Amino acid sequence: MLYQEHPPLSIPTLGFAAQSATTPLAPFSFERRDPRPDDVTIDILYCGVCHSDIHQARNEWHNSLFPMVPGHEIIGTVSAVGAKVSGFKVGDRVGVGCMVDSCRECAPCKADLEQYCEDGATLTYNGRDRHDHSLTFGGYSERIVVSEAFVLRLPDALDAKSAAPLLCAGITTYSPLRHWQVGPGSRVAVIGLGGLGHMGLKLAKAMGAEVSLFTRSPGKEDEAKRLGADHVVLSTDEARMKAVAGHFNLIIDTVPHPHDLNPYVSTLALDGTLVLVGLLGPIEPVIDSVPLVIGRRAVAGSAIGGIAETQEMLDFCAAKGVTADVEMLDINNINAAYDRMLKSDVRYRFVIDMATLRGA
Amino acid sequence: MLYQEHPPLSIPTLGFAAQSATTPLAPFSFERRDPRPDDVTIDILYCGVCHSDIHQARNEWHNSLFPMVPGHEIIGTVSAVGAKVSGFKVGDRVGVGCMVDSCRECAPCKADLEQYCEDGATLTYNGRDRHDHSLTFGGYSERIVVSEAFVLRLPDALDAKSAAPLLCAGITTYSPLRHWQVGPGSRVAVIGLGGLGHMGLKLAKAMGAEVSLFTRSPGKEDEAKRLGADHVVLSTDEARMKAVAGHFNLIIDTVPHPHDLNPYVSTLALDGTLVLVGLLGPIEPVIDSVPLVIGRRAVAGSAIGGIAETQEMLDFCAAKGVTADVEMLDINNINAAYDRMLKSDVRYRFVIDMATLRGA
Repeated sequence: MLYQEHPPLSIPTLGFAAQSATTPLAPFSFERRDPRPDDVTIDILYCGVCHSDIHQARNEWHNSLFPMVPGHEIIGTVSAVGAKVSGFKVGDRVGVGCMVDSCRECAPCKADLEQYCEDGATLTYNGRDRHDHSLTFGGYSERIVVSEAFVLRLPDALDAKSAAPLLCAGITTYSPLRHWQVGPGSRVAVIGLGGLGHMGLKLAKAMGAEVSLFTRSPGKEDEAKRLGADHVVLSTDEARMKAVAGHFNLIIDTVPHPHDLNPYVSTLALDGTLVLVGLLGPIEPVIDSVPLVIGRRAVAGSAIGGIAETQEMLDFCAAKGVTADVEMLDINNINAAYDRMLKSDVRYRFVIDMATLRGA
Repeated sequence: MLYQEHPPLSIPTLGFAAQSATTPLAPFSFERRDPRPDDVTIDILYCGVCHSDIHQARNEWHNSLFPMVPGHEIIGTVSAVGAKVSGFKVGDRVGVGCMVDSCRECAPCKADLEQYCEDGATLTYNGRDRHDHSLTFGGYSERIVVSEAFVLRLPDALDAKSAAPLLCAGITTYSPLRHWQVGPGSRVAVIGLGGLGHMGLKLAKAMGAEVSLFTRSPGKEDEAKRLGADHVVLSTDEARMKAVAGHFNLIIDTVPHPHDLNPYVSTLALDGTLVLVGLLGPIEPVIDSVPLVIGRRAVAGSAIGGIAETQEMLDFCAAKGVTADVEMLDINNINAAYDRMLKSDVRYRFVIDMATLRGA
């Protein structure tokens, strides 16, 4: 019998997958790799359902690889570790977010900004493993095998279910809040009250900022205030918009479809930034440069956060008692959940209870 | 005879004015106010000709007030001072830029950022005086009367003629270079090689940056390198553009008409900013958000600079031996000069020799 240093044995795994852009998600059996020396094997307890899961399952970004097992807001328990793993042991509560690897050598990787890896980070799903080039499969599944460097520790104080969305919705809003140095005295606005938006309100408030929600829908006042907003600004109300002209230091724009940025840009203070975290595509209609020039304002973008910053965010959430508002989901209802998400009918994030997978 | 604390006596002054958006500039006699206690009266020696002089003389920004005496790159000699002026005396060499006053009380004014005055700075021309509400008249004239707080000291080391364009073209490029912290190790690109662009190259180089020029016109290599560029990138050459993908920390975009920003945004490094200093209007075609999000890049704007920063810039230029490349102009040829500027036929700034006014 030939000796193999890392035998390519595989672990049968059940999940839910889209077989094409036009087929609903359905049960799917596949194999996970045996742990490499630096790998952690995780039994998945819960997985949040992100809007980008829908975009990718339906190939709306034109880069989808099938079959696709979505899911990048993963909470679970360590069930095995490779020989060289030092930071985790069997039984630990852990999380996995949007990335499972990166080149680890470029300047951004060395600066703990793996999300901006010059070679492209390896996505948790809809990606390809850097070693064996196999498709990566995400968190709508029983277990996952991930390099230790991309595994997060779940602080004891955090509830496992409602912590799942922190791995994407949480870090995606936390990272720009930190990068643009939000703290007491900052005036922050969030556009959109979905999975990202509700985390943006909570996190900005926990950082000590004055927090406002921009919304196009009346009647969200109580909800927004419960979630941390000091003010709610109906963006269709011109008088209200004028009243906040020049007001905000940072606007976190979570809206995932094209929308007019100009009314919001005018509400930025001198040196203020509107940062896009939800939109991937053309910024239509066109932006007027005048408010940028006469107020040294900026329109920027931001993508999730690095692994160290994600851990920092989890620790911050544990210290401040921040988690997502979640609706628990039976994975057998995932397709109906997608339909509801497209109607913004979820407060504010679906989280799959992976126990329901075994009954699938 | 009634006593008047500040008698409204007036000083007959000759200049060149546009009487409407469609009439050429022509000699124009008007009156300057007698100096108020804080005013400095300046005999104008030289005045640079800025592209925005044309925009405003022709009402292209739809906010022109006529008659209009353009000119906001003014160098002259102090001929009189008000009773409370302490920083200047008769005979001093001084400069006046784009602003002659501001509210002096808002947060930006108190932070030495008068160009972003919340009440709107008083422009050197095409504005209205904050006290008597008269039209402001600019530097295409014999003399000007300006509050001491908006007068710059011209360092001895600077040549008066070639320093004139520093008051607008210089500070407009200097301020974003400073704000975005350019120094040794920075990779800076300038788009466009006109009055602003050539100052951008010189100033970025003097700050120790690696400097590149983006241009659509071949054959500018030698000129650009003489002015401080280390590299010239032909923006119509896709291979060259690909070679600088992800390279620049800051791009100073001096182009005054609509143009596609997307090819340039992709050349920004992680956390890089493209700052518009020449364009006032819609950013067409639309910007793609993807390069913003996946590189935490920004598109921003910047307007001239504050008075303290303008003085800092003049002192920096004196220390580094930086001035503009100028072509001296007889004011009687101002209309022909405008036509040449519209064809980019000037290296790189016209400066009116005001001695030619007396022969007009």
